[in-house]
Amino acid sequence: AERLRYILGEDDEAPNPTLFTEMDTLQHDGEEMEWKESARWIKFEEKVEEGGERWSKPHVSTLSLHSLFELRTCLQTGTVLLDLDGYSLPQIIDDVIEKQIEDGLLKPELREKISYVLLRKHRHQTKKPIHQSLADIGKSVSSNTKMKRFEPAASAFAFRVGKRGGKAKFQQPLSSLPSSFQQLKNKFIKKIPKDAEASNVLVGEVEFLEKPFVAFVRLLQSTMLGGVTEVPVPTRFLFILLGPAGKAKSYNEIGRAIATLMVDDLFSDVAYKARDREDLIAGIDEFLDEVIVLPPGEWDPNIRIEPPKKVPSAEKRAGGGGGGSDDGEMPEVHEIGEELAWTGRFCGGLYLDIKRKLPWFPSDFYEGFHIQSISAILFIYLGCITNAITFGGLLGDATDNYQGVMESFLGTAMAGSMFCLFAGQPLIILSSTGPILIFEKLLFDFSKGNGIDYMEFRLWIGLHSALQCLILVATDASFIIKYITRFTEEGFSTLISFIFIYDAIKKMIGAFKYYPINSDFKPDYVTMYKCECVAPDPGEYTSFSAPDGEDEGDALDWTQLSKKECLKYGGSLVGKSCKFVPDLALMSFILFFGTYSMTLTLKKFKFSRYFPTKLRKLISDFSIFMSILMFVGLDVLFGLNTPKLQVPTDFKPTRVDRGWFVFPFGKNPWWVYLASALPALLVTILIFMDQQITAVIVNRKEHKLRKAAGYHLDLFWVGILMAVCSFMGLPWYVAATVISIAHIDSLKMETETSAPGEQPQFLGVREQRVTGIIVFVLTGISVFLAPILKYIPMPVLYGVFLYMGVASLNGIQFWDRCKLFLMPAKHQPDYVFLRHVPLRRIHLFTLVQIICLAVLWILKSTVAAIIFPVMILALILVRRLLDFVFSQHDLAWIDNIIPEKEKKKEDDKKKKKK
Amino acid sequence: AERLRYILGEDDEAPNPTLFTEMDTLQHDGEEMEWKESARWIKFEEKVEEGGERWSKPHVSTLSLHSLFELRTCLQTGTVLLDLDGYSLPQIIDDVIEKQIEDGLLKPELREKISYVLLRKHRHQTKKPIHQSLADIGKSVSSNTKMKRFEPAASAFAFRVGKRGGKAKFQQPLSSLPSSFQQLKNKFIKKIPKDAEASNVLVGEVEFLEKPFVAFVRLLQSTMLGGVTEVPVPTRFLFILLGPAGKAKSYNEIGRAIATLMVDDLFSDVAYKARDREDLIAGIDEFLDEVIVLPPGEWDPNIRIEPPKKVPSAEKRAGGGGGGSDDGEMPEVHEIGEELAWTGRFCGGLYLDIKRKLPWFPSDFYEGFHIQSISAILFIYLGCITNAITFGGLLGDATDNYQGVMESFLGTAMAGSMFCLFAGQPLIILSSTGPILIFEKLLFDFSKGNGIDYMEFRLWIGLHSALQCLILVATDASFIIKYITRFTEEGFSTLISFIFIYDAIKKMIGAFKYYPINSDFKPDYVTMYKCECVAPDPGEYTSFSAPDGEDEGDALDWTQLSKKECLKYGGSLVGKSCKFVPDLALMSFILFFGTYSMTLTLKKFKFSRYFPTKLRKLISDFSIFMSILMFVGLDVLFGLNTPKLQVPTDFKPTRVDRGWFVFPFGKNPWWVYLASALPALLVTILIFMDQQITAVIVNRKEHKLRKAAGYHLDLFWVGILMAVCSFMGLPWYVAATVISIAHIDSLKMETETSAPGEQPQFLGVREQRVTGIIVFVLTGISVFLAPILKYIPMPVLYGVFLYMGVASLNGIQFWDRCKLFLMPAKHQPDYVFLRHVPLRRIHLFTLVQIICLAVLWILKSTVAAIIFPVMILALILVRRLLDFVFSQHDLAWIDNIIPEKEKKKEDDKKKKKK
Repeated sequence: AERLRYILGEDDEAPNPTLFTEMDTLQHDGEEMEWKESARWIKFEEKVEEGGERWSKPHVSTLSLHSLFELRTCLQTGTVLLDLDGYSLPQIIDDVIEKQIEDGLLKPELREKISYVLLRKHRHQTKKPIHQSLADIGKSVSSNTKMKRFEPAASAFAFRVGKRGGKAKFQQPLSSLPSSFQQLKNKFIKKIPKDAEASNVLVGEVEFLEKPFVAFVRLLQSTMLGGVTEVPVPTRFLFILLGPAGKAKSYNEIGRAIATLMVDDLFSDVAYKARDREDLIAGIDEFLDEVIVLPPGEWDPNIRIEPPKKVPSAEKRAGGGGGGSDDGEMPEVHEIGEELAWTGRFCGGLYLDIKRKLPWFPSDFYEGFHIQSISAILFIYLGCITNAITFGGLLGDATDNYQGVMESFLGTAMAGSMFCLFAGQPLIILSSTGPILIFEKLLFDFSKGNGIDYMEFRLWIGLHSALQCLILVATDASFIIKYITRFTEEGFSTLISFIFIYDAIKKMIGAFKYYPINSDFKPDYVTMYKCECVAPDPGEYTSFSAPDGEDEGDALDWTQLSKKECLKYGGSLVGKSCKFVPDLALMSFILFFGTYSMTLTLKKFKFSRYFPTKLRKLISDFSIFMSILMFVGLDVLFGLNTPKLQVPTDFKPTRVDRGWFVFPFGKNPWWVYLASALPALLVTILIFMDQQITAVIVNRKEHKLRKAAGYHLDLFWVGILMAVCSFMGLPWYVAATVISIAHIDSLKMETETSAPGEQPQFLGVREQRVTGIIVFVLTGISVFLAPILKYIPMPVLYGVFLYMGVASLNGIQFWDRCKLFLMPAKHQPDYVFLRHVPLRRIHLFTLVQIICLAVLWILKSTVAAIIFPVMILALILVRRLLDFVFSQHDLAWIDNIIPEKEKKKEDDKKKKKK
Repeated sequence: AERLRYILGEDDEAPNPTLFTEMDTLQHDGEEMEWKESARWIKFEEKVEEGGERWSKPHVSTLSLHSLFELRTCLQTGTVLLDLDGYSLPQIIDDVIEKQIEDGLLKPELREKISYVLLRKHRHQTKKPIHQSLADIGKSVSSNTKMKRFEPAASAFAFRVGKRGGKAKFQQPLSSLPSSFQQLKNKFIKKIPKDAEASNVLVGEVEFLEKPFVAFVRLLQSTMLGGVTEVPVPTRFLFILLGPAGKAKSYNEIGRAIATLMVDDLFSDVAYKARDREDLIAGIDEFLDEVIVLPPGEWDPNIRIEPPKKVPSAEKRAGGGGGGSDDGEMPEVHEIGEELAWTGRFCGGLYLDIKRKLPWFPSDFYEGFHIQSISAILFIYLGCITNAITFGGLLGDATDNYQGVMESFLGTAMAGSMFCLFAGQPLIILSSTGPILIFEKLLFDFSKGNGIDYMEFRLWIGLHSALQCLILVATDASFIIKYITRFTEEGFSTLISFIFIYDAIKKMIGAFKYYPINSDFKPDYVTMYKCECVAPDPGEYTSFSAPDGEDEGDALDWTQLSKKECLKYGGSLVGKSCKFVPDLALMSFILFFGTYSMTLTLKKFKFSRYFPTKLRKLISDFSIFMSILMFVGLDVLFGLNTPKLQVPTDFKPTRVDRGWFVFPFGKNPWWVYLASALPALLVTILIFMDQQITAVIVNRKEHKLRKAAGYHLDLFWVGILMAVCSFMGLPWYVAATVISIAHIDSLKMETETSAPGEQPQFLGVREQRVTGIIVFVLTGISVFLAPILKYIPMPVLYGVFLYMGVASLNGIQFWDRCKLFLMPAKHQPDYVFLRHVPLRRIHLFTLVQIICLAVLWILKSTVAAIIFPVMILALILVRRLLDFVFSQHDLAWIDNIIPEKEKKKEDDKKKKKK
């Protein structure tokens, strides 16, 4: 290991190029010989299937220990030429043979034969485009039984006088001519990094040798050796093993061993820097020392091991020195980041937020232009308008239409777009939320009951609350949310998810009440079912005033009246079918459940085996949009009168007696202006908690955000928008957890190209302001999109809601822990925390969370909902109490450690060290 | 390797007992020391999670090469005591220490200290029952922060004076007392074979040693060493490694290495038979030689590798000598078995069939009594009555009720139970099939058109056909079906599956036609919808005769008539709702699709992580029954008038003018009796093909049937039953592919207990006659079950049909190959044939099959359906033609080789060898 450190030298040198390794084996066909590609490596092994003429899936190379030792011997006894100045294959081969003869390893008379063999042409396994394969099917029908096919090789030969920059290498009359046309056509090059170099491994058996001919060559300059490599990548290393006949399999294994070594980060480094044979041997020994061994009785070497999700980095290996078990694991650190440090200066946090975010501002726009943004916009847009309509409707009910659907649309569009444009975290989506709705309802009832003007009272509460928010901003009060650990955070977001799921299902069940099904209906007795409008008793009837513009009495054709009209004019409905509405409830259910499960299925389609990756990703990204389209189509096909999305079409307040501006004075006594500070305090707590917990969730470390958060700036804008909304008589807006998470999820980025078999890595989120702004602009102009939107049935949107709720439960550790209750220990997934914390402690912790949630749920369902945000504060308290029940070690694994404690723990460690 | 063969000696000795290995590590807690179980092996490794106090999932032991070499050194330098006569731990330890001192490996003054350490008590990781864990949760709330918990150890101590046959070992005052109560309570013992012996590995670090203390002990007689092992299994081997402090991790790895070696089949054999230290070393060397090596850069040693589905057997390893690649793979051989050999004697095949099946006859009954049979019976019963009703209905339509639902029930019950009682393959389920139905329809039309008596004509055709069948039996003609390769077989069964799926969906769509949905319905205009029965024009009306027992004209209250009555009396239906039936179509769809997807979901539930294995298996086994119950429940809940299953309740022929016996003479001219031999030939081919292809599918090698097939005996009974059915005027019966496969699937057996991590192995099918007989007896008495069965909606049964069709597609290689068309090459599963046959050849083969199926499908849909069975013969021909297009090598992988060719191939091989 020390020698190794010496060989590798300083760390700060430029990293070596990635090595692409190709192994070719010598094939005999009577007198003919050729080199046939049999495997290749970028990081993992891909093998040419024996009879399949196809590449295997990339897999972890499983080697035999034996072959590694044989390889070691080969390098000890064979020729090792480091930094050979080679410009063409024949010359390199000449040099190698010369050296062998010099060293007495090879009889001079074999020179020609060896050279002849090594210069045979190379045949590569290339993937053919589909149309060519189909043509081949046609061809192959006629020519069968002949097992070996030389067509690809022949065609490679035909193209041998390729161009490759005019440097056609005619000096190689016999052998590996640059079949560069094929090389350039090979799409595999996309998988290889630009700066890569090749290492070629050639193994084969020949009759005329009595002992193996082994050579390891490193070229001074990497050189294109023509058709030796399947892709136009310059060769740096060459390993040749020719041996006596009869041991082809063993040679093959040695070839695989050196190829695997060449793509090993550490060994390739050694290979680049080795000064002599011994350095290489030391490299092998180091490799052997770190090797992982599977017992032959517990594993079948024929099984190809799928590449792991993550492999240990070379640095870690070079430093840490191998070893089996799981000491490396450490609980994730709870890091809220510097954004929440308490500056102690007036508006210090806000100033830092602006300073931090300003440099990103331009990129927030140009980084938004990406195909993925379209699907995100569609998804979030639909979520937003559904939300706007739902809350608008509910607010309208609660406030006697002082705030209705129109106000909801306008407010959402205005507040949302302003927030996305200027806030610290533009990934957050603003929306009306449940607690606010309840507050408005109580406020309206109170005003009405006490003769206070609702709109003016509300304006003052809004202004006070906005002011309080700004005070919180100015004093950096947001720093307290660093006490919000995973416990509180996940409790909150689980609750919100449940509310989504619950609401979606409640709405669905509502359809069955709204459209009752006639379960006694018998098809044969269709004649018995009718619903007739019967005129009221003439005596009574006359007391009613006749409808406008119509004559009295008989002039009114009662049978032609609709249900509503009939009831309006005092008629009564008589008949068995009056109470029932056919088909609509069941159709609604089919649309609801269909949309939900179709979205789920399409989302999962990314992991299916069918169709190319890109298409699958597209389908998965647009899953919600496609499901909606599909079920809107189904609805149109059936043509049933299902409840549809109805957006207001005229731009005017829902109530005629109010305008777009609320005047602050004149309707209420003066003390109301001051007293409203008290309810405002409640609103402030509510807004602060809702906003900042969502912000913490959005800014979670695992989302890998680059552009940092801006808690103070966010709250600043929420405050400002609150004041504006209050003046305009629009609802108040705050961060919506579920939709914000959906926003982030739909903008996740992964590495696009990677070595075959390597898992795409999550890179982060497309952080920008474009999607958010467009979503809210679209929401604003939805008023004009009504003709299109009216085709969307509400049950489809409830299905989307259900999906959003369920999807946002994923990735919540609390939810994973809940599931553990139902799993026998042996079937539980291999979560890290399970390795470190006893199961019963985990269960206890989960149980506490469940109880907290249950209490919150009950609170939420009663009038006490108004103190809901205060209860979130109580969650933090409960979490602090848990410090007395659980050890810090356990908490570190299943939750986070509260800041002071963390410091204390570090102190303890320091003490221990002393 | 040679030495190894010498050590292991003759093959025919009794196999060694299975070894259970437990590794205990020495834990220090201040002055206190104890041995704590840290891992165990039966076949795979289970580790005690560091902080989790729980067993990890069983996984493949990944070792480091380094530790294996260190272990080798340990065995070279340490004490090796083979065949020590030990009866208790203290005595064994004394002997070991004595030997070490003798050999100068240990200073005599350390004797006491070593002995003290080795006799410390052992603490095992035992799984607590759930109620105890919950109690612990309660307890642990009070006592926290203290990380290490000694409760289990303490309680183990409390039980030390356990009974264990009265032999309490009081001679061990200090240490490992038999905590036998705990041992006996340990449920893990169930996983260990009865004859197993234990090997105990003890590793730890102690302050007072300067160099390691190593001992490998084999006892002459395996002995219970009390609390050393977690389960009451006698110990045979003991490995002790105590070393100087500071290298605990390394000792741990060495311990894991020896433990892994001890459970290796080959090494444990060596360990049992070794005569000296060198034999053990040779064993390690052999192990090392076969070891599988993973490169450190491609695999993270922290990942626990799931046990593979299959591991290579020890024999293969001992013989074949390791080595990586896939030479071992050979295409499956097409083996129909001796049942189909042509005997050349009269009834030779039939005689052999009876001789072969007779010894199994008693076991065919007592082996049927198993819980699994109940679910199989329920499943198949529902399939059978649905089939009986469907075909009964269709036959009734086709033959003007000469054969109706009642005949269908009676025939199914009679033929099915007789067949299951006496036939060669009682797993086959008889049923009416499509081709027979079409034949009957044509026959009836022909008879009617030509004035021939249908029933008598049919009787004669039946008798001729039965005779022809018996001739086929007598001449062993069934031997020709050995030319049916996978190509034909899978083509046939895919077709039948498609028919099932198609029919199920067609029936479902039928519901939408039968119960049209009123898509123009507007809830508010419910008053506009009615359907009134309007009396016909008085002029016309009088020309009709008034209904019996009623006066003419006005006496009839037209508004009170049902739809049917209204039309019957010549009234007309007027109104917007006449054409429509609300809710039923959509409800049918929900029931249909719900049953199907619920069954699919529950079936898959076996592979979920939730709930204990047994419960999951139960749910999976009864998935169909549970889905049916669930959706019948849903239907009852809604109370809608969905179409229900209606079985006849009176035991009498559907048509009043026929009895239960058809008299053969008198109604048709004499030549009809002879001429009917011609159509009978068609029926015979049809029956023969249908019956025997299904039999081939049922008797497939992969079903691992023990009791052999009886092709001739099957056909014999089909013939006999045909004659009987013809006389009784019942439909003809033949093997039903899809239901037979479902029957087999529901009776599959797997190994119940196996080492943790080992996959349960498919053992075969519960071959017996009980399930079949009960199914058909139930079918017979269904006439009396009508009050219960009438709750089952037909759409639920169509859902079951759909499931049956889809499920029977699984495991058909052709279907797998079809899916390959949609998968990019790199995502295709690792099928063996893909490794050996070029993809385009596979696609070509699949394409040919698809075309054949398409042609058959078209034929089936036209009147040509009658020559359908002949077309199956054509499939065999197509397959023979494929011999000219594909090489025998390719065919061997994706199909089977036709018998003669196989012989020829073998001859070729022999020639080559010469």
